[in-house]
Amino acid sequence: MIDSRPIGVFDSGIGGVTVLKVLATRFPQESFLYLGDTARLPYGSKSGQTIRRYSEQNVHYLLRQGVKAVVIACGSASSQFPESEFEGVPVYNVVHPGSFKALSVTKNKKVGILGTKATVKSGAYAHELIRLDDKVEVFSQACPLFVPLAEEGWDDDPITNLVAYRYVNPIVKTGIDTLILGCTHYPILKEAIRKVAGPDVTLVDSGEAIADLIAQDIERGHFKPVKEGSEQNIQVMTTDASDYFTNLAKQILTPVVAHEFRVVDI
Amino acid sequence: MIDSRPIGVFDSGIGGVTVLKVLATRFPQESFLYLGDTARLPYGSKSGQTIRRYSEQNVHYLLRQGVKAVVIACGSASSQFPESEFEGVPVYNVVHPGSFKALSVTKNKKVGILGTKATVKSGAYAHELIRLDDKVEVFSQACPLFVPLAEEGWDDDPITNLVAYRYVNPIVKTGIDTLILGCTHYPILKEAIRKVAGPDVTLVDSGEAIADLIAQDIERGHFKPVKEGSEQNIQVMTTDASDYFTNLAKQILTPVVAHEFRVVDI
Repeated sequence: MIDSRPIGVFDSGIGGVTVLKVLATRFPQESFLYLGDTARLPYGSKSGQTIRRYSEQNVHYLLRQGVKAVVIACGSASSQFPESEFEGVPVYNVVHPGSFKALSVTKNKKVGILGTKATVKSGAYAHELIRLDDKVEVFSQACPLFVPLAEEGWDDDPITNLVAYRYVNPIVKTGIDTLILGCTHYPILKEAIRKVAGPDVTLVDSGEAIADLIAQDIERGHFKPVKEGSEQNIQVMTTDASDYFTNLAKQILTPVVAHEFRVVDI
Repeated sequence: MIDSRPIGVFDSGIGGVTVLKVLATRFPQESFLYLGDTARLPYGSKSGQTIRRYSEQNVHYLLRQGVKAVVIACGSASSQFPESEFEGVPVYNVVHPGSFKALSVTKNKKVGILGTKATVKSGAYAHELIRLDDKVEVFSQACPLFVPLAEEGWDDDPITNLVAYRYVNPIVKTGIDTLILGCTHYPILKEAIRKVAGPDVTLVDSGEAIADLIAQDIERGHFKPVKEGSEQNIQVMTTDASDYFTNLAKQILTPVVAHEFRVVDI
């Protein structure tokens, strides 16, 4: 069973590009349609109701473009969109795969979550972790400065190290051995987070966790891959024009190359 | 000539509250209708075209509520909305009053501007300053971290001091004697900016500049004040529900007190 249609991926902005990069690398024959809702970013400071409305509009838009699956590459949107199917098309969000992967690596069952205000407030990761294993202890921290630091490109910077220390040190002190990067921007700041978390804490990256799940679904026959030998095509659409976004997206994607960047009205 | 209708003020979020506070204090009998477009914030990272569209929607909404004037208390929106009148109602943005005030205080005609990416990219302040005085030299710096730092409440914080140094020191080194706070969030971080700017640089706050202009317009008969002895009423509307915004707005406004907070659909 094969399906030549592209996989849709959406995020509020640049963060989901970290997920796109992982997926495009792990599935080098699959094509991707990425939607960055940059006109309405960031989602992380908005209410759950608003995030849900925007997310539905994004999923509908991708479905109209003829995708075979939707990946919600945004922690805030994922926390408001728990469905694994929408109008007959499989939907992957970051919350379930990230939680599943965290539980597969934790030894002391103490798991930390870093996310936006909206993601932490929703309790989506905490609920999912406890649903999967009611013995787990969960510790959360909202990190509102991380998204703008990532977008400023200050990934290797003393200011970012200080902000990371401020956010990450208290949660590491609780004794966690696993830390979920619950916002798709955060892999951009992985080195700064790693410095504070230390070598004994495993960082869980949503992109890797989703890729693992899709690989499993392909094996189980729940996800139809493209025909062997297909050529990958990657298109990046944004809802607002921005050279800055385009350049930052190209930089994050490297060595993966997007074939087209364009602005769309959803 | 009197006019008992309220003055409309809008911003993408919390920043314009600094302007509302100055205006409510300077004109203690006038009533105000504040609109914070929090569902779509921030404006500063969006394209000029999108900011213009959102700003027109906000102005229309306030006009439907029956305001006698509109104050655009947002640097990014002001940079896309130069009109001084819209559908017969006077409009005040921050660009003209801020530029005018800066030119009235500068001695060496070297003026700096701190703003969002959108404001700096638009060149609105630079154009207005040069239009008013073609001898002026203008230096601009985008400060994308300032809005989230202000919203995090880290106004008295070593991290904010470091970020302020990063953004403000290079512009101070150009020899400016006047620095426009070209985003209405920035007065929240005034102390950190002042530390870097030093005692010889005058900081120009948009709220004060607009209040000066309205006071002049009242004297000239271009702006109709309320009847002497009127009781002030302040209503704060937001496009997204957020206890966080409400609490931060109350804190910034103090000792001014808003009579009502409510969520609206514009």
